Amino acid sequence: MKELIEPLRGFRDYIPPDSDIITWICDSFKIIVKRFGYKEIKTPTLENFKLFALKSGEEIRESMFVFKDKAEREVALRPEVTPSVIRVYLRELRNIPKPLRLFYIANVFRYDEPQFGRYREFTQAGVEILGADGLNYDVELIEILEEFYDSIGIKERMYKVNNVAIFRELAKRARLNEDEIERMFHFLDKGRFNDVINIFKEKGAVKEAQVIEYLYRERQRDITAIINMLEGYNEYKEIQKHVETLMRYIDMGKAIGAKIYVDPAFARGIAYYTGIIFEVMVPNMSISIAGGGRYDNLTTVYGGEELSSTGFAIGVERTFLALRNNIEIDLGYPKTLVLLLSNDIEGFTKMYNVVKMLRRQGISIQFEVLESAQRLSRWLEYASKQGFNYVIIVGRKEMEKNVVVIRDMKKWTQEEVPLDMLREFLVKK
Amino acid sequence: MKELIEPLRGFRDYIPPDSDIITWICDSFKIIVKRFGYKEIKTPTLENFKLFALKSGEEIRESMFVFKDKAEREVALRPEVTPSVIRVYLRELRNIPKPLRLFYIANVFRYDEPQFGRYREFTQAGVEILGADGLNYDVELIEILEEFYDSIGIKERMYKVNNVAIFRELAKRARLNEDEIERMFHFLDKGRFNDVINIFKEKGAVKEAQVIEYLYRERQRDITAIINMLEGYNEYKEIQKHVETLMRYIDMGKAIGAKIYVDPAFARGIAYYTGIIFEVMVPNMSISIAGGGRYDNLTTVYGGEELSSTGFAIGVERTFLALRNNIEIDLGYPKTLVLLLSNDIEGFTKMYNVVKMLRRQGISIQFEVLESAQRLSRWLEYASKQGFNYVIIVGRKEMEKNVVVIRDMKKWTQEEVPLDMLREFLVKK
Repeated sequence: MKELIEPLRGFRDYIPPDSDIITWICDSFKIIVKRFGYKEIKTPTLENFKLFALKSGEEIRESMFVFKDKAEREVALRPEVTPSVIRVYLRELRNIPKPLRLFYIANVFRYDEPQFGRYREFTQAGVEILGADGLNYDVELIEILEEFYDSIGIKERMYKVNNVAIFRELAKRARLNEDEIERMFHFLDKGRFNDVINIFKEKGAVKEAQVIEYLYRERQRDITAIINMLEGYNEYKEIQKHVETLMRYIDMGKAIGAKIYVDPAFARGIAYYTGIIFEVMVPNMSISIAGGGRYDNLTTVYGGEELSSTGFAIGVERTFLALRNNIEIDLGYPKTLVLLLSNDIEGFTKMYNVVKMLRRQGISIQFEVLESAQRLSRWLEYASKQGFNYVIIVGRKEMEKNVVVIRDMKKWTQEEVPLDMLREFLVKK
Repeated sequence: MKELIEPLRGFRDYIPPDSDIITWICDSFKIIVKRFGYKEIKTPTLENFKLFALKSGEEIRESMFVFKDKAEREVALRPEVTPSVIRVYLRELRNIPKPLRLFYIANVFRYDEPQFGRYREFTQAGVEILGADGLNYDVELIEILEEFYDSIGIKERMYKVNNVAIFRELAKRARLNEDEIERMFHFLDKGRFNDVINIFKEKGAVKEAQVIEYLYRERQRDITAIINMLEGYNEYKEIQKHVETLMRYIDMGKAIGAKIYVDPAFARGIAYYTGIIFEVMVPNMSISIAGGGRYDNLTTVYGGEELSSTGFAIGVERTFLALRNNIEIDLGYPKTLVLLLSNDIEGFTKMYNVVKMLRRQGISIQFEVLESAQRLSRWLEYASKQGFNYVIIVGRKEMEKNVVVIRDMKKWTQEEVPLDMLREFLVKK
């Protein structure tokens, strides 16, 4: 026998019930964000590579699926959706009154080494607020996530937060160039603090290096310690302001019941964040299940005017992994499953209208032809294995008498019901 | 100003309400197929190119996005989902009792010349029945489609049908090789009948060429004419059987109310069909909005045992185009839209629980900070443009009195409501 074809490395298939749970997570997300006034946007899976390179630098190529199409365009499978949303905004949504609340559910691609919770294709459910000038928009993201996780039953979750503006301000004071800033965020993301400090030291920015060292050393302590420390440096007013913003954000988050902790050394990999950033963590999982933050003026990278924005993306498959062992959910499948057996197709077409009505009342009916009486036991076994509630048998004899035989697969009883009573019989059950 | 980045040629963005309608079509599809007992399957967007080449031949490369990934694997953006479903079946679902009813909603890619209703990325909503030995399964596909189109309001639709087994039998009799069969189907699909006939003539299969000629000449006439014609050829019993299958199928389709017509010269581009095939046509659109058919034993191409199967795929964007001008649909957005204005974020966090409750009752609430009284008119204009039903104002004064001011944007009236009456007030409205 030939060898079976496998999915590509880092890609995977989902069969029921896993596939259903993935869809249910997405549907739950949609219900919640609509209540917050978000509208859906759909963008292509494949984009001009430039869209991502302009935003994140050429290095992003390493972790992406980039290739040349038949017309020699350099194209890429999107690693995230935000750049596409900004692209659409600049082309089509500029004149709509702000704030503009958008959501998306999309598959994204990363050429990373596969590991637990990290696939090369995965689904992101995200929101963006465009024209989001104010801390209230950052808090709104937490509200949405709180409501979403409550709705799907992830009761324990924590928000790891920080304010990237602190680093940006330090970088500005130390006159780091674009490249150095990018390296700084890269090292921050990887937890390589000594490398971060070295960037500052090389620039002769001693005090800024001190602040970074302090942030790192005190990362386990309360953020107020940083505030106190900064009090001593009169010239760090701007940084103090950013720390205060962070604290205000935390207070408001706590006021709505979210569990928040600050990691002063936390930075997210994506280089375009400018303010509050966060990731959602759950017990017993080392990887975050959602993340986001403020990315003011990303529009200017694409030739647009300034625009303050904030947003997040939920990792749908990771959320699924977090849910895995404690799900009691309604996957949206009909509760009553009926297997209808008829001795020929004509028997079924005669019953078509009754069946149609029953299906419209939310009963799932699967129709099969019973080729001979001997095959009945085979179908009953099938019905039993597949969890059907009822088997309805409509043979020639039954058709003549205008009845059907209904077998209750749980009680293992059987009765004859007049055809015109079938609907009532099933709906009552 | 820099030039804005465009979507790639043949790709497009969807913004509200178009994006909502696309999603609503998919959701409607899911509801219907679940009532027929189908379960969801999710497969990767990117597959080993071999998966498609094995099934459709190397030429498929021309109309696909194929490239080498960083590990030099030849990979492809899926042009359809059926091969992936078969792949998953062989790896994971072989031991599940048949028939196995599966559905999917997936983006697929074709490197075609873009034109009306033909994009390089589009969405397919499809079903597959694996282990579908019997005409009743082919009829079931029509039933699903009838119910689906009824549910979304596409009232006028026609099924163009044929039985590919007729051509396969003729090919077998004429001893066409794999390559010639592929060419035959290619020419049939393009309506190049003379080329089809030539393939048979070159093989010296005169009578088979005659049947093909007859099929072509009589394509406007009733299929019974073909039956009658075939009566004269005793040795065409097999073909007669296939024609009878087709007629039986049509009768059953008509019995459930579907409008069906036969095009004896109709073949679908995809080479793996083996029996009944069909496409769904709507008035004023030259392209089909759905299509499918029987593809017995596709499993054997991938090293599996024989398996009879049938399925279809709906073109979601084409369905959207067909709907476009006559939609009166519930897109699943909350009916009551409220804009809540507070003079500071603290005002909102205080109201958080009331707002949370209202959202859970399906009211959409968008929260904004009213920086100053002067900004009120700006927000009222925004609310009016965006179609909000109510604007709720919670200033410092209102907070002290434990009231809110509610402005009815339709009636242009305004009243003060105690905070603890807000929920009742809105739910009543």
